Amino acid sequence: MTIPADLEKRFAEREGQLLNDLFDFLRIPSVSARSEHNADTARAAKWLHDRFAKMGFAVETCPTPGHPVVLAEWRKAKGAPTYLVYGHYDVQPPEPLNLWTTPAFEPTVRDGKLFARGSVDDKGQLFAHVAALEVFLEVRGTLPVNIIVLAEGEEEVGSENLAPFIEKHKQRLACEGVVISDSSMFAPGIPSILSSLRGLAYFQIDVRGPASDLHSGSYGGAVVNPAMALARILATMHDANGKIMIDGFYDDVLPFPPAVIDGMRKLPFDEEHFRQEVGASSLGGEPQFTVLEKLWTRPTCEVNGLLSGYTGEGAKTVLPGVSMAKVSCRLVPKQEPAKIEALMKAHVAKVAPKGVAVTVTHLHGGKPWRADLEGPLFEAAKRALHAAFGRNPEVTGEGGSIPVVGDFERILGVPVLLMGFGLPGENAHAPDEWMSVENFNKGMRAIADLFEELGAKR
Amino acid sequence: MTIPADLEKRFAEREGQLLNDLFDFLRIPSVSARSEHNADTARAAKWLHDRFAKMGFAVETCPTPGHPVVLAEWRKAKGAPTYLVYGHYDVQPPEPLNLWTTPAFEPTVRDGKLFARGSVDDKGQLFAHVAALEVFLEVRGTLPVNIIVLAEGEEEVGSENLAPFIEKHKQRLACEGVVISDSSMFAPGIPSILSSLRGLAYFQIDVRGPASDLHSGSYGGAVVNPAMALARILATMHDANGKIMIDGFYDDVLPFPPAVIDGMRKLPFDEEHFRQEVGASSLGGEPQFTVLEKLWTRPTCEVNGLLSGYTGEGAKTVLPGVSMAKVSCRLVPKQEPAKIEALMKAHVAKVAPKGVAVTVTHLHGGKPWRADLEGPLFEAAKRALHAAFGRNPEVTGEGGSIPVVGDFERILGVPVLLMGFGLPGENAHAPDEWMSVENFNKGMRAIADLFEELGAKR
Repeated sequence: MTIPADLEKRFAEREGQLLNDLFDFLRIPSVSARSEHNADTARAAKWLHDRFAKMGFAVETCPTPGHPVVLAEWRKAKGAPTYLVYGHYDVQPPEPLNLWTTPAFEPTVRDGKLFARGSVDDKGQLFAHVAALEVFLEVRGTLPVNIIVLAEGEEEVGSENLAPFIEKHKQRLACEGVVISDSSMFAPGIPSILSSLRGLAYFQIDVRGPASDLHSGSYGGAVVNPAMALARILATMHDANGKIMIDGFYDDVLPFPPAVIDGMRKLPFDEEHFRQEVGASSLGGEPQFTVLEKLWTRPTCEVNGLLSGYTGEGAKTVLPGVSMAKVSCRLVPKQEPAKIEALMKAHVAKVAPKGVAVTVTHLHGGKPWRADLEGPLFEAAKRALHAAFGRNPEVTGEGGSIPVVGDFERILGVPVLLMGFGLPGENAHAPDEWMSVENFNKGMRAIADLFEELGAKR
Repeated sequence: MTIPADLEKRFAEREGQLLNDLFDFLRIPSVSARSEHNADTARAAKWLHDRFAKMGFAVETCPTPGHPVVLAEWRKAKGAPTYLVYGHYDVQPPEPLNLWTTPAFEPTVRDGKLFARGSVDDKGQLFAHVAALEVFLEVRGTLPVNIIVLAEGEEEVGSENLAPFIEKHKQRLACEGVVISDSSMFAPGIPSILSSLRGLAYFQIDVRGPASDLHSGSYGGAVVNPAMALARILATMHDANGKIMIDGFYDDVLPFPPAVIDGMRKLPFDEEHFRQEVGASSLGGEPQFTVLEKLWTRPTCEVNGLLSGYTGEGAKTVLPGVSMAKVSCRLVPKQEPAKIEALMKAHVAKVAPKGVAVTVTHLHGGKPWRADLEGPLFEAAKRALHAAFGRNPEVTGEGGSIPVVGDFERILGVPVLLMGFGLPGENAHAPDEWMSVENFNKGMRAIADLFEELGAKR
């Protein structure tokens, strides 16, 4: 299996310029979590809108209560099936800035890696679809299937307005299947189809003690310290082996089928290599599970941020008035974010020391997901990935969350294909995020071939 | 007992203008902990230098490896004893800025309170000495005793260069006693002499896990989280009753004499009023001790600051690469900072989880102190405080640390009088720091009368 020659020729001619176009997209700091970047986020939506308009798509930038959805439609393949491509044009905050080798919003290629915030998550992968469709239209003047591209601007802040949007436009978004590239391949050269995602329940825990910061000498010893209280609360969340000690936390965990676990254990995965890539002195988590099982099949409870008192240079003898932790749980089927929220709140209320007021706020959540990988969409994807990468794809899991996957499946009643082109160690959500230039180029080809295959099916 | 009439008349005439002069001193953001304020800190030293020069003192701004010492000498009282006044012209960092009602470096009087960073700790109290000496010289043309004023600029960062300075200038600083106003009165209207101070051992704990921040979905569950590890370390430092669980921590604690504890229990102290002032829902610490015993006679282990991962608005699903806590212990006689450092390091090494690298850095320390309150300096102070405030002073303890007190006693071999004019709730080291304007005015008078009494003794 190979990419059709006419498409391959054009990709070879245009791939350098398409990469340059991606640079322009990446330079826009569309940080959806930060209101001071609202104009930038709007600019990224407009950039996409204009690109699709130029390609001959019918485009609409649809307002939501948050950042807009860019909806681009090409429906000229009479009688052919319709597929929906989903991606997001917003990115994670770039902080801590000082840990970036080159600035987060100045795309730079080093050693075949394109470094920029959003390079792999998800602007680069979304743009691979844009570019694949553009090249297809240039070469053939038409597309083999009808295409809806739905690009949102709130994936990094919980996609709160997306499910209502899909619900509202259910008729318009009717299709045979959804294609998403917002995940990673198992390893370089190993194309992958993702079969499971973890869900998320993200909390902020605020601890208030004295009405203001106090002098730790004049008051220390008689006042409950909110930072120490927070530490004591957080320390109750696991036992020494990494098991989560929140009552009822594991009640709804549905074990993965033994065959799936077997498949995971057969993947060429070197835990020591993973440890080195992570850069930790040793790995953690429950010892009875392999790393891939921990990442793909087990829920977590992690601290994402801590803040209290004086954190600058030198010493300040302050007894802080408040402390804050961001804490999030990754969920696996059939855990429900709303139930985990209730369990977390009950747990914190149970363990919170006297003398402080503790509040737990659920910032956002998303359900876990599993696919069964059957039907024409998955068959076409396997062939397209083989054509672009020269080998059969592996079926993998993923520890991260794309809450909208379950929403598409539930609301539109169609299968969702997760065909991602990231790589392990790509630093999504961290400084020095990168995407493999080779994967960007092969990804475009795989996407074009996927639509070719899907068109041939009719 | 009253203030001599000639001095009283002049204080009454000049007190408003002297308060204005203090405003100028407070406007200088002499934050010794922050290198970006080095020029301001130097400016505060120059302000003092110029004031003393104008008063006819021989002044020298003496460089140290850090911020300079301003040494002002008036030695024209032939045959009279010499006393040394110590104070500091540096201040705590003003953060968090948003919690100040009016800006930290724009002095403002509301309800008889002068609000500004440094108002009470210690510029306002140091300036009360400057003003008392200035008025004395204006009225009498001379001073009843020889005076050395030593004002340092590193009290808020541990006074590391002061003990060596005193040691080096031991001959020049020879005196009958040291007078310090850098503490609080027991309550409004109750002048106080401080008989004990806690010491300090201040640490920074740094936890390093993965080489960089990671995506909490893609990596969470298989990597030890440095923020969670830090919480688990901190949570081992106390038991549920507030007892410190660091091995050997209490070994060197010398119980206070029963008579001193009895005196503390007789002081008019309302624990419920203290709780309301603090603004906490209930108080904390070891239940078998009264609040004053906890503050004055018991050591502590407090978190002064926490920082890890994402702390901004909204949610970021990061598994942090590092976490940091500032942790400090208040010490009581005969605990030694160096020994506590060793115990803290041993404890953290013992409890630190695998998979992270933990370092404990001792940022600075100071020994605890107790005085016996006998001799002419203390007798004169009792009379002077009665003259200014109309009642006998109480003997109190203090939970804070002034490490240099022990240094003066040890190196110069003379008693140290701690006669402070702060008040409970003054927010030293916190936003909205204030000093009572009444205490500033009465404090100047008490200081002037103290020197009058000490001169009459010869």
